[in-house]
Amino acid sequence: MPATLMHTLRVDLGDRSYPIFIGRDLLADAACLRPCIAGRQVVIISNTTVAPLYMDRLRQSLGSDLAVTEVILPDGEAYKTLATVQQIFDRVLAAGHDRTTTFIALGGGVVGDMAGFAAACYQRGVVFIQVPTTLLSQVDSSVGGKTGVNHPLGKNMIGAFHQPRAVLIDTQVLQSLPAREFAAGLAEVIKYGLIRDIGFYAWLQEELPRLLAREEAVLAEAIERSCAIKADVVAADEREGGVRAILNLGHTFGHAIEAAQGYGNWLHGEAVAVGMLLAMRLSARRGWVADDEVETLAAWLARAGLPLRPPADMSAATFVQHMARDKKAVDGRMRLVLLRPLGQALVVDDADAREITDLLGAVARGA
Amino acid sequence: MPATLMHTLRVDLGDRSYPIFIGRDLLADAACLRPCIAGRQVVIISNTTVAPLYMDRLRQSLGSDLAVTEVILPDGEAYKTLATVQQIFDRVLAAGHDRTTTFIALGGGVVGDMAGFAAACYQRGVVFIQVPTTLLSQVDSSVGGKTGVNHPLGKNMIGAFHQPRAVLIDTQVLQSLPAREFAAGLAEVIKYGLIRDIGFYAWLQEELPRLLAREEAVLAEAIERSCAIKADVVAADEREGGVRAILNLGHTFGHAIEAAQGYGNWLHGEAVAVGMLLAMRLSARRGWVADDEVETLAAWLARAGLPLRPPADMSAATFVQHMARDKKAVDGRMRLVLLRPLGQALVVDDADAREITDLLGAVARGA
Repeated sequence: MPATLMHTLRVDLGDRSYPIFIGRDLLADAACLRPCIAGRQVVIISNTTVAPLYMDRLRQSLGSDLAVTEVILPDGEAYKTLATVQQIFDRVLAAGHDRTTTFIALGGGVVGDMAGFAAACYQRGVVFIQVPTTLLSQVDSSVGGKTGVNHPLGKNMIGAFHQPRAVLIDTQVLQSLPAREFAAGLAEVIKYGLIRDIGFYAWLQEELPRLLAREEAVLAEAIERSCAIKADVVAADEREGGVRAILNLGHTFGHAIEAAQGYGNWLHGEAVAVGMLLAMRLSARRGWVADDEVETLAAWLARAGLPLRPPADMSAATFVQHMARDKKAVDGRMRLVLLRPLGQALVVDDADAREITDLLGAVARGA
Repeated sequence: MPATLMHTLRVDLGDRSYPIFIGRDLLADAACLRPCIAGRQVVIISNTTVAPLYMDRLRQSLGSDLAVTEVILPDGEAYKTLATVQQIFDRVLAAGHDRTTTFIALGGGVVGDMAGFAAACYQRGVVFIQVPTTLLSQVDSSVGGKTGVNHPLGKNMIGAFHQPRAVLIDTQVLQSLPAREFAAGLAEVIKYGLIRDIGFYAWLQEELPRLLAREEAVLAEAIERSCAIKADVVAADEREGGVRAILNLGHTFGHAIEAAQGYGNWLHGEAVAVGMLLAMRLSARRGWVADDEVETLAAWLARAGLPLRPPADMSAATFVQHMARDKKAVDGRMRLVLLRPLGQALVVDDADAREITDLLGAVARGA
């Protein structure tokens, strides 16, 4: 067993508090998870891409005394549906798992969201552990307890708050991540700097070459600082009654892109990158951030390999239609996360269809 | 507007506490619910049997300033599935309800369980109100926050704990309830006496003729005392870590009957009546209650119009197979609620397949 250097963060939620273990090769050394497993039964939920790479490694390091059922889902956001969750129930019930079982998600955000939702609903709730294998899920979706599936009329419209009992982040797995997925994860890392920590934002800018080269030490620090910010915000507002909404910077625009383009065609992080840049531009149009800060961000996202513009065929009307249906909307009134100034997010509810249309028009004209 | 005499009980669950309003003609006087409605949007979920009778009355008494979407489901336990819940989401999303909406269940236990589960999952949770229209749902399923749907491999296997914001019980609606459904509800009323209140049990025996004649005052008292016992037990153990399991007297046998016969062929209360009698007999075989107490209960259930015996074509092996899959089971070990003595329930985990088989054999022989 390799020697691993492990850092442990804690998400502070009273009797639902849990650890985030971060380290190299933790998949091969998952003994730290054993105290978090409820009984002797375990369900490991993964997908056809991730399971061949890491399933055996995780099973071996968990120990041979557990009764394990593997559920291998098709890969992709297009499968993040209630119908796929029903397949999880079919498998787990047929294998006879009782309510002392523990669900483990091994994969990216799609696997984690569905496995978590299934764990929230199986026999009215069982223990759940996240083992995220993409940068995006490591810094974002695996922490905070949001679970769910998409509906043709909106992303994550069906779901539950169900906190994991633990999160295990193996930084080594990022070495094999496709470039496009790695870039998508970086978008969420950059988000944390933008909304909450200007020092982290500056550090990221400086370290970008080493991040893109996937140097372990820099990656581990970026992940740890991202998770620490997310853990802080979630601890302050678990069910998004207030401040937690700032984590959605770029997401209202982003979800509209994902829904309108068909789930899975744009990666979530790609849509969020475009959304963040739109939110920055809107903040600049209101005079809350400087124009050159917008351009710096754009240049930086481009270097990371992220898209900068909405799909060319997506009209402002389509954006507005999807955005009005966002979960943050109240009585048809859009709520958007903007920046004022850089490094500090706020939620506004006074953006109307016209302001969005003007913004998108200017972007389309390259202004 | 008619003058109504209203009693209010309270389910004490800290910041999730809620009132149970009980009274005659409350459907026509639902103003008491207004403070429990979250915003201006309301979804009323009912079925094809109940909606024609009570939908207009409820809508009118709630007031005309709300944006109401009606969702009318097919009637029956066979439709208590994830697929039906998906239909609720389709309707509610198409109508543009945001997360300030309030779901109201107008119907029996099936409608309440599904509407509650949909409310738990819609945009990760919205406010929910129960307006139960059967005796069974008034005294049992509408109180306590258990929501969910069935799976071919087990009853209520998929669900959530999601407490209602209020429960409104109109005793007048019971006058039009079919006799078979009324009897099924009485089974759960009797259960409360058996598990927790020998005085209530004696009172019910004495008042049975007036209960069966559906005399309003007696009915209202039976409902109120049942709800008070349930509220007490739920307040002590919201998520069924311990004492709440006693509410399942007769349910492990009963769920096996329901699952094996196909959902909807036996009413839930009918299956529970047979299950309670089996649990009484098992308790008597262990010497915990007297044989004549078993016969008294049997005679009494018969007078109420309830079945006394399991389906003739259901083998002991089928019972055991379904019972081992019960949500209370741990590591394949059955857990059963028995009585020791009458009026006091306890949970045992030492009943094995052989004891169940012997019991069912004796019942089949009429011993």
